[in-house]
Amino acid sequence: MQVRSGLLRNQGQKIVFVPTMGDLHEGHLSLMRKGREQGDCLVVSIFVNPTQFAPGEDLDTYPRNLDRDLDLSKKEGVDIVFAPSENDLYPEGFQTYIELEKLPKHLCGISRPTFFRGVATVVTKLFNIVRPHVAIFGQKDYQQLTVIRRLVRDLNLAVEIVGGPIVREPDGLAMSSRNKYLTSGQRAYALSLYQSLVKAQALLKSGTREASKIIGNVSGLFLSQPETTIDYIAVCDPETLDDMEVIDRPALMALAVKVGSTRLIDNMILSP
Amino acid sequence: MQVRSGLLRNQGQKIVFVPTMGDLHEGHLSLMRKGREQGDCLVVSIFVNPTQFAPGEDLDTYPRNLDRDLDLSKKEGVDIVFAPSENDLYPEGFQTYIELEKLPKHLCGISRPTFFRGVATVVTKLFNIVRPHVAIFGQKDYQQLTVIRRLVRDLNLAVEIVGGPIVREPDGLAMSSRNKYLTSGQRAYALSLYQSLVKAQALLKSGTREASKIIGNVSGLFLSQPETTIDYIAVCDPETLDDMEVIDRPALMALAVKVGSTRLIDNMILSP
Repeated sequence: MQVRSGLLRNQGQKIVFVPTMGDLHEGHLSLMRKGREQGDCLVVSIFVNPTQFAPGEDLDTYPRNLDRDLDLSKKEGVDIVFAPSENDLYPEGFQTYIELEKLPKHLCGISRPTFFRGVATVVTKLFNIVRPHVAIFGQKDYQQLTVIRRLVRDLNLAVEIVGGPIVREPDGLAMSSRNKYLTSGQRAYALSLYQSLVKAQALLKSGTREASKIIGNVSGLFLSQPETTIDYIAVCDPETLDDMEVIDRPALMALAVKVGSTRLIDNMILSP
Repeated sequence: MQVRSGLLRNQGQKIVFVPTMGDLHEGHLSLMRKGREQGDCLVVSIFVNPTQFAPGEDLDTYPRNLDRDLDLSKKEGVDIVFAPSENDLYPEGFQTYIELEKLPKHLCGISRPTFFRGVATVVTKLFNIVRPHVAIFGQKDYQQLTVIRRLVRDLNLAVEIVGGPIVREPDGLAMSSRNKYLTSGQRAYALSLYQSLVKAQALLKSGTREASKIIGNVSGLFLSQPETTIDYIAVCDPETLDDMEVIDRPALMALAVKVGSTRLIDNMILSP
């Protein structure tokens, strides 16, 4: 792949890259369509990255559908699918990781302390192999997008990072490979993530600017609901992810909620 | 620099890179001469990297001689000298570091636990900016060379790493910018580093293969000497840096010794 990228670059082709963990859904496909517009050669990677899963998380059960993913990629006009094996990316003796000091200490990084180390490491590796001019990441994983923008600047990687909007089911649930873990009852409960974001935006528009009041109010949606545990609900600066107390400028509202044993995330930029 | 490297690459030029902390001496110049042979465009960086110094180490007093370095580089036919400012490489908000899990837990990494994090980070950044085909590092910093070879493999960097032999003063002292910290008395004591390596090789050749015996024997050279403290003397696998008990194949002998307040290092591959 690295050699092929070098040849493409020498031919003057603009390489656009969409990294995924496979089990492609409409969210991924929207990133591919966005990617199609941005360059000449569209590369998609499919790799369930073990270093971003902690022991006890769902690495073994994470959905894998390579044949279906290849069909979908072909339909979207993907030029190259890069699907390395675990041993390709982490051969014996592997020991080098990318660590960020601050951004992973917020939001999902609190309950998943090694997650962003794994993400930052595999994305850097994939960038060095695929050598893209542009890479596209979904805004559903907002903190991931923030981490990647930061590491690209910090490590002087010559890649332009583009975010793609969250794609939702008709009722508002953010698309995720993990949605298929949900029972039909849990699927209904899961809707509260999106509803809480919509409610928060409405509260802000009607004049409630204190983050604590908004968070307190929307927490109520989950507390009364069976099988549901809040991991976090936060209102923070969209770049540093530092908590905001008063929403006097655009703020990221992000939340992680467990429904049954499935951990779901969602987010929205709230504008006063 | 990054744009210039891209243009040079597009023109088919082979870029060779020698990263330094400046205060160039014959050791650096030998790496430049080696570099000259390996490609078309020779780039030297001069940057005293703050992230590889711990508080209390000699960041502030480390010798800096940019004008002299530029003259010497010119004489060696260097095409580009890259001398970024601290703010160029570590702007406000910088927070991304490269960490290796195992190699820094040996030798110099024990008394300098954040040193290789700083080295790995700055070298990765410099590689991404200079975009060399080949990079040359001195074997005097043997552990550094090992760390860099490993991170290049682990992060899929497309750079060939070449080691250059240690350059010594006529009496055997390995060249180092830190030698100028030594008083004339200390300069004489410092010679024991090289003498201990020569003695170790002689002991091995005469049949002593147990690392502990060799280390015990050469330690005597330092224990009787004023102003001299051993940080470590180790015999280890040249790739993993794991301790070796019996020298039944080529082994790295490495040592760090403080003479006065100056910490000096040296090493040699011992062959049975």
